[in-house]
Amino acid sequence: MIMSVKNDAAPRPVTVLGLGEMGSAIAVVLLAAGHPTTVWNRTPEKAEALVADGARRAATVRDAISASETVLVNVKSAAAVDAILGEAKDVLAGRAVVNLTDGTSAEARETARFVAEAGARYLHGQIMTIVPGLGHPDSVVFFGGEESVYDRHRPLLDLLGGKGTLVAADPGAPVLYGMAVHGTMWGILNGFLHAAALLKDEGVELKRFLDHAGPSLSALTAFLPSIADEVDRSQHAAQYGALRHHLPSIEDLLRESRARGVADHLPAHTLALVTEAVADGHADDGYSRLIDGFRTR
Amino acid sequence: MIMSVKNDAAPRPVTVLGLGEMGSAIAVVLLAAGHPTTVWNRTPEKAEALVADGARRAATVRDAISASETVLVNVKSAAAVDAILGEAKDVLAGRAVVNLTDGTSAEARETARFVAEAGARYLHGQIMTIVPGLGHPDSVVFFGGEESVYDRHRPLLDLLGGKGTLVAADPGAPVLYGMAVHGTMWGILNGFLHAAALLKDEGVELKRFLDHAGPSLSALTAFLPSIADEVDRSQHAAQYGALRHHLPSIEDLLRESRARGVADHLPAHTLALVTEAVADGHADDGYSRLIDGFRTR
Repeated sequence: MIMSVKNDAAPRPVTVLGLGEMGSAIAVVLLAAGHPTTVWNRTPEKAEALVADGARRAATVRDAISASETVLVNVKSAAAVDAILGEAKDVLAGRAVVNLTDGTSAEARETARFVAEAGARYLHGQIMTIVPGLGHPDSVVFFGGEESVYDRHRPLLDLLGGKGTLVAADPGAPVLYGMAVHGTMWGILNGFLHAAALLKDEGVELKRFLDHAGPSLSALTAFLPSIADEVDRSQHAAQYGALRHHLPSIEDLLRESRARGVADHLPAHTLALVTEAVADGHADDGYSRLIDGFRTR
Repeated sequence: MIMSVKNDAAPRPVTVLGLGEMGSAIAVVLLAAGHPTTVWNRTPEKAEALVADGARRAATVRDAISASETVLVNVKSAAAVDAILGEAKDVLAGRAVVNLTDGTSAEARETARFVAEAGARYLHGQIMTIVPGLGHPDSVVFFGGEESVYDRHRPLLDLLGGKGTLVAADPGAPVLYGMAVHGTMWGILNGFLHAAALLKDEGVELKRFLDHAGPSLSALTAFLPSIADEVDRSQHAAQYGALRHHLPSIEDLLRESRARGVADHLPAHTLALVTEAVADGHADDGYSRLIDGFRTR
């Protein structure tokens, strides 16, 4: 059931605060690896299955944190993290808090400041898999924080996903990395669903479409490194695939969408971005030039 | 320079109408494969380099079409195709017109009707590569039309891209297939550029981001077959990754974008789609449920 990462870490007490679907999955992975695991959740019933698996249930946040040097937090929001840690500020000193809760980069930094003030060390982690992927050797977790803290906890953290990686000392960095991947994901999913609406309007089975177009779609991510390089260098000149070549194809997509009564939101947005760049004199630049349209301030 | 596809086709006369960047590249590929190639362009100067390479320049559309049984057309727009073929309707009979010009699916069908009325056969082709990829063994061209016409011309058509494929008898189908790939492409590029704007605001080098996140991004297209299957079956229930789990992450991305003065258009659109689906009672469905939001009529 659980695909735990091979891990030679000696058993060490760990605490998990928050037992939603992901928090519970984290506790299961730690228990399976043999770590004495203390769990706490605001509604204690959620701990029952874990207690049956060998977890120790703490009655209070203070008790839970006091049980282990390492404290993993996975709750609903940054506000919930702050409330929970606020109940136990005086017992945090000397421990390491690994916060795996969603939020913004500013919230991650704010929590990191609070934890540092309390005399504890802090890592922020952004889990990049859904629950069934937790603990898988290929699953990615982005971490931000001091390298020494990450290194010390690495055997434990690698249990969450075999492709965990420290991206920066800044606790806000993994949040941004995660958002960047997820934002790109929503981009491709929305673009594909718009395309799917066109194809279904015509009665095309998407499986049949993928039989022909699957390799073309899989190849799309291959554009990203060159786009990234052009943005990093602020050099957008294109020998081929210039914006002026994109323009008529985007206009076709917009006309096709409207003719079929498919939502025109996405092609209209793309057309607006390209049209603005062309109006600014960038018709011969490549697609990476559109970064300008996303930087509004 | 030219990476021509291995091809055993006997030399046969071919005509290319339209010598923009792509039309010229098509003529170059045909000449390189040894086919006697007649070319025509509204502004005849564009033929000069090709004539030096062995092409025959025709003075009129009628002369150009009369020179070959097979006529490839790659011009600016469907309106230009109609104007050009309209000049030569009486010499089309018995030939095959392979139209590689951008446009909508309705325009492709309209041109197909005109060509059929003139007694010629018709294939519509959607070239899925930029100019330097033309003729490459991995390049894709989607074709639509009668299978017998495609099969007869296959050795010639495979010169354009080694991964050419007949997707349907409908000449509008390759147009839709191409739009579906391009629309998905603009989706991922826009999502990535939005992400890039966030990362650059923080001063993160995108190359460094890709060093860590590249595998996560490459994996994104792996979601598409399951999304396609769910849309085909109209079954959107999700055991994991339900819309209610997407919602807080999208809200975080929206808040992060606004806090940094990065354009909030894309996350706001995604949030609107998800919020609407959740309001319609689909919180436990997967992302494929959002297809409903793209079908507006």
